[in-house]
Amino acid sequence: MTVPVRNKIKKLLTGELVGENVLAKGWVRTKRGNKHVNFIALNDGSTINNIQVVADPAIITEEVLKHVTTGAAISVVGKLVESQGSGQSVEIVAENIEVLGKADPEKYPLQPKKHSMEFMREVAHLRMRTNTFSAVFRVRHALSYAVHEFFHMKGFYNLHTPIITASDAEGAGETFHVTNFDLDNIPKTDEGKVDYKQDFFGKETNLTVSGQLEGELGAMALGEIYTFGPTFRAENSNTTRHLAEFWMIEPEMAFYELDENIQLAQDLLQYTVKYVMENCEDDLQFLSQRAQDEEKNKPQTERSEMTLMERLQFILENDFERITYTDAIDILKNSKPNKKKKFNYLIEEWGADLQSEHERFLVEKHFKKPVVIYNYPKDIKAFYMRQNDDDKTVAAMDILFPGIGEIVGGSQREERLEKLQKRMGEMNIPEEEMWWYLDTRRFGSAPHSGFGLGFERLMLFVTGMGNIRDVIPFPRTPDNAEF
Amino acid sequence: MTVPVRNKIKKLLTGELVGENVLAKGWVRTKRGNKHVNFIALNDGSTINNIQVVADPAIITEEVLKHVTTGAAISVVGKLVESQGSGQSVEIVAENIEVLGKADPEKYPLQPKKHSMEFMREVAHLRMRTNTFSAVFRVRHALSYAVHEFFHMKGFYNLHTPIITASDAEGAGETFHVTNFDLDNIPKTDEGKVDYKQDFFGKETNLTVSGQLEGELGAMALGEIYTFGPTFRAENSNTTRHLAEFWMIEPEMAFYELDENIQLAQDLLQYTVKYVMENCEDDLQFLSQRAQDEEKNKPQTERSEMTLMERLQFILENDFERITYTDAIDILKNSKPNKKKKFNYLIEEWGADLQSEHERFLVEKHFKKPVVIYNYPKDIKAFYMRQNDDDKTVAAMDILFPGIGEIVGGSQREERLEKLQKRMGEMNIPEEEMWWYLDTRRFGSAPHSGFGLGFERLMLFVTGMGNIRDVIPFPRTPDNAEF
Repeated sequence: MTVPVRNKIKKLLTGELVGENVLAKGWVRTKRGNKHVNFIALNDGSTINNIQVVADPAIITEEVLKHVTTGAAISVVGKLVESQGSGQSVEIVAENIEVLGKADPEKYPLQPKKHSMEFMREVAHLRMRTNTFSAVFRVRHALSYAVHEFFHMKGFYNLHTPIITASDAEGAGETFHVTNFDLDNIPKTDEGKVDYKQDFFGKETNLTVSGQLEGELGAMALGEIYTFGPTFRAENSNTTRHLAEFWMIEPEMAFYELDENIQLAQDLLQYTVKYVMENCEDDLQFLSQRAQDEEKNKPQTERSEMTLMERLQFILENDFERITYTDAIDILKNSKPNKKKKFNYLIEEWGADLQSEHERFLVEKHFKKPVVIYNYPKDIKAFYMRQNDDDKTVAAMDILFPGIGEIVGGSQREERLEKLQKRMGEMNIPEEEMWWYLDTRRFGSAPHSGFGLGFERLMLFVTGMGNIRDVIPFPRTPDNAEF
Repeated sequence: MTVPVRNKIKKLLTGELVGENVLAKGWVRTKRGNKHVNFIALNDGSTINNIQVVADPAIITEEVLKHVTTGAAISVVGKLVESQGSGQSVEIVAENIEVLGKADPEKYPLQPKKHSMEFMREVAHLRMRTNTFSAVFRVRHALSYAVHEFFHMKGFYNLHTPIITASDAEGAGETFHVTNFDLDNIPKTDEGKVDYKQDFFGKETNLTVSGQLEGELGAMALGEIYTFGPTFRAENSNTTRHLAEFWMIEPEMAFYELDENIQLAQDLLQYTVKYVMENCEDDLQFLSQRAQDEEKNKPQTERSEMTLMERLQFILENDFERITYTDAIDILKNSKPNKKKKFNYLIEEWGADLQSEHERFLVEKHFKKPVVIYNYPKDIKAFYMRQNDDDKTVAAMDILFPGIGEIVGGSQREERLEKLQKRMGEMNIPEEEMWWYLDTRRFGSAPHSGFGLGFERLMLFVTGMGNIRDVIPFPRTPDNAEF
């Protein structure tokens, strides 16, 4: 008998090959049975669904079967037939099984029982073999692909902005230092300062916190660009929403004003959510069920009124509510939780920074849909945002999502050289380090806009997972750079 | 008159909108003319081709026209008509021109004349506005998109492996340190050593040199994955082939053996080259012409026998030559340059590492096509490569391209725990730091393979550019982290 070519389990489950001899390879999820027959659930990562392998001990020896345990890698040749049992459409009647790699049941960490998410993080090198995490990372791929497809179809160019940088887009924010120095023996100047001239790049360098400033350079040449890369914050935040290393999508567009910027962000979010709904149905169904089970552990008042699938559908069907910061403050000032002093930070006057409790109130209680807040006070926003004529606000916009809070932050950029320089002066941003950024305003300046979308925030929304550490393969957080 | 919606110049040049009133925005490349008529070449980054704007001084005032200089950003409304002149099919008869941003001809660095590539690197924030670099970065986008499309269609998942890492895939290689310490004041232990326990991650961390090891974890769960992200080497190499920060594509596949690995790499290279040829015709024509012009500055003997377009076509039409390392050594040992002692490193015996001069000989002189060399001596390859039965070689493979040298390096991975541990011992790789990597061999191990493709090397091949600093937007090299 010649060995057939291997097919992925996703393909086998379509039933197209029923009646044929097939070859499948994968990892054993479970084995059950008796002395007459064994049923092996086999998964190869191509789909959340396992294929059932029927093994007759008269054909597959006990010597082989005893190593077919949860976690073992096996290769199966057999006939693909319509399934007799319920729960699956086709199954493989094994003619030969080869154990490629054993998994000692006494030692293999992922036995078929419920493990805590904390434990899963400790075995992040293996957790992708579970239903939950394989679904999460298949969705992550689909979402990532959808981002590229969206921008590509619109004529945007993917721009790889630098990771190591000597500038700091936010003018603030804690950055990681990058150095080639032996930290035990750092060269010093005569004045006893670190002698960065001797470092690899001849100056002090950091990991980027945003590709925006370089993205603007691209937009002012190529028209419409986007970045999709890792960004870094050295903030000592041990929360379910923060990572030290995370992926950002940052489009920048020449000739876009604020309203076109908002529309693009809405289109992107709707397109990617729709893409995942259409292409990851099995994974989303599983994750939706999982999220619903998790909800049951929460107090009644904190439970979501919608299932994951309903929340995703809802995003597609509703325009986002657009309100000015000033209107948002009015709503919040007059809201019940503000009047009854339920907010931790009471809203008393115009100019206050919005906290996550305020954002959630607006999105989840007041409007019950995604909210875009725009025209923020200039004093709570970055130097590069375009100043409005009122001299008080800037053309900034944040998009707030239910359960997530801020998922997008962006603005029209200040394209007028003098206004930009004046604002940089007020905010103590050194002009000499930003000569190249200012050059785009010196030569052929034009209105332009952009935003940043935190990819893991979007992942949280789409997968219904509760902790940002569970939507990136190997999370980096304070005291954790394992794997 | 209502203002029409803006269309990109690429769309306008298709001629679909001839006869309509159109709105174009972009940057002035050149302006020429006389007191009766002005011709403005306008570019917005959507294509290498400019649209011609015809400005009649009777309609567009001198006050406006005097600011329409090279580099200025303008907005043009006018009728799209079939062109009278040669060299373009359509043109805009301007009814209104607004100067969005001036570009003082005394100061704007990119005047319409030939600039050196060295100068262009100094103004990397503006060089994307030139024909050469806009073509390069449009091609970079297309090539990047083709990579994603190729893997997506094959059912691979894009895996975002970590950038900050406490491990070092190559077991060697100079890495950049990542730290949150104030370098002026590094905490020390009682023994006077750097106290990494106090650093952000509680241990010594670096920038990744490869996502392979984590990629293998993904493959051994999800089946087939690929990474596409930045990697880093702190090597003090000032060459036309090295960057401190560059992008790598690293697929890892469960159940693939070496020959399937080689085939995948060939398919990927052919697919992406074909994609760019089909989707970036104008840009490639320009770059091909540019490369041909550059060739003229080279001595006759160093000139390429083929044009860029011919080299690309050649890759599509020829299977790559697959030879063992042992055969390669035989060919080299008996080659003319070896016998005549023309090689800087003479090939004397089996076991020698191949230098770039040897690779180029095999590819450019001997086979005259891409060459895959496999089964290398284990002593010149990494610890994780699968040991062959001869006990001398490993199932490694490198793909060599004309003009580039090594473009892909990969192997079947050693999936047998004991053999891997023994090799790690021999090569002094600490097992305790790699417990998670070894776990994939402890639990459900299986044959698997992968490779790394240097994205900028592929860019050099596809664009015909001569220096790797010119195919990444903002290159990082020794003493240079500008922008």
